[in-house]
Amino acid sequence: MSEFDEDVVLSPAEGGYTTEVSARWDIGGRPNGGYSLALVTAALQRTAGLPDPVTITGHYLRPPLAGPAAVGVEVVRRGKGHTTLEGRLVQGDEECVRVLATFGDLSRAAGPSRAAAIPPALPPPEECPPWEELPGHFSERPPFFSRFDLRVARFAPVPDGAGQIEGWIRFADGRQPDVSSLPLFADAFPPAVFAVVSSGWVPTIELTVHVRNRPAPGWLACTFRTRFLIDGYLEEDGEIWDEAGNLVAQSRQLALLPRSP
Amino acid sequence: MSEFDEDVVLSPAEGGYTTEVSARWDIGGRPNGGYSLALVTAALQRTAGLPDPVTITGHYLRPPLAGPAAVGVEVVRRGKGHTTLEGRLVQGDEECVRVLATFGDLSRAAGPSRAAAIPPALPPPEECPPWEELPGHFSERPPFFSRFDLRVARFAPVPDGAGQIEGWIRFADGRQPDVSSLPLFADAFPPAVFAVVSSGWVPTIELTVHVRNRPAPGWLACTFRTRFLIDGYLEEDGEIWDEAGNLVAQSRQLALLPRSP
Repeated sequence: MSEFDEDVVLSPAEGGYTTEVSARWDIGGRPNGGYSLALVTAALQRTAGLPDPVTITGHYLRPPLAGPAAVGVEVVRRGKGHTTLEGRLVQGDEECVRVLATFGDLSRAAGPSRAAAIPPALPPPEECPPWEELPGHFSERPPFFSRFDLRVARFAPVPDGAGQIEGWIRFADGRQPDVSSLPLFADAFPPAVFAVVSSGWVPTIELTVHVRNRPAPGWLACTFRTRFLIDGYLEEDGEIWDEAGNLVAQSRQLALLPRSP
Repeated sequence: MSEFDEDVVLSPAEGGYTTEVSARWDIGGRPNGGYSLALVTAALQRTAGLPDPVTITGHYLRPPLAGPAAVGVEVVRRGKGHTTLEGRLVQGDEECVRVLATFGDLSRAAGPSRAAAIPPALPPPEECPPWEELPGHFSERPPFFSRFDLRVARFAPVPDGAGQIEGWIRFADGRQPDVSSLPLFADAFPPAVFAVVSSGWVPTIELTVHVRNRPAPGWLACTFRTRFLIDGYLEEDGEIWDEAGNLVAQSRQLALLPRSP
């Protein structure tokens, strides 16, 4: 079993599931927000009866800690083609993440397509340095970094925005990407805003992921861009493409840079 | 009192508020999704004790109808600078919209700013035709259209995407924009995808609005763009700017075009 699959194991319980938040996805001493979103999404997916989380929103209330947790699940509405569910990641009496998600079945989607945009033009992964070789930002190597093979193609300010990071990512242990792991990949790159501001950390307030296609095996090509940093609040928009050249997810998060140093 | 303020009046009740969904914002015989999101946001704002809904996500379960409704409100977490709440728009036994939102106080935000992007370069409103003069799309004039003065600057396919619509909007009755009305403005323009596909309607699955600044009085300059239409699913990304040249909101919705005609 892969690291990711081991770390989203759920046991049915009253009102949802119990689980164990793993320390393997820690960064800055706390589980990464994409991991906690993927964990709740896994619980919702199991209840939904539909495979694809077409839209997932998580609000981050307080950082969880590695250890036992409950995932409360509520079916909000089962419709004809979509089911909406709500999830809560709870440790002790404290809720850490509240999630709303709508599931569908992308294999049955039958509407029109029109997508002129193409994947970012990146040098091949083997020509891109791994992130631990990036200068400056990463003096420590948190457990999270060991979970991925992440190659940075570009990490720079952009003319019409604040900062952008582009590159390739896959699980270090060879697990292939799927719709369940896309919430994790959507929050796995270093913050794009670090291209223009240095900061200790950038806590996420809310993260929304739209799953647009089921990923093919292989690398994921990713672009994350922050255009507006306003009084510390920033959005980060992500696009994730698979090796077959299909857009598999779009993401947007609202995050906050603490007061200027 | 303005039309909008009249139509988001709330009366405290067990578990939240009661209200009356107005028919004035109907389009296609049902209340517009931005209006129902603004209505729930008004209830959450009243409970939050903080003025600015920095991020709001609504999942659309079934369309409401004009008439009596309840807005259930739950305080998910009151934190130091932000409060997260959940809202439910309910008619009879049926929940129509589920909302998660986090409120803050933008006047106290003290982090750094870096926003290279500037408002869209649009001809002045008086040189842009009102939407009812657009050819083709609007044979009927639903009540919703009478609530706004909406001028279309551009409505066309775009090279790197599906469709884009840009223009100006303000309330027809002279009410000034504020953070409470931004969820409504975020869903008020005709769908950008109509620039490339004709369709009867485009139901919204989920709409997220980030409030980034409090709007100055006057017109709002807006851009809505759909880049990826994939098997009927599409995202629509919006930017709303005020007359002072500040970005006041970003929006993204996931919507569905029914099966090709």
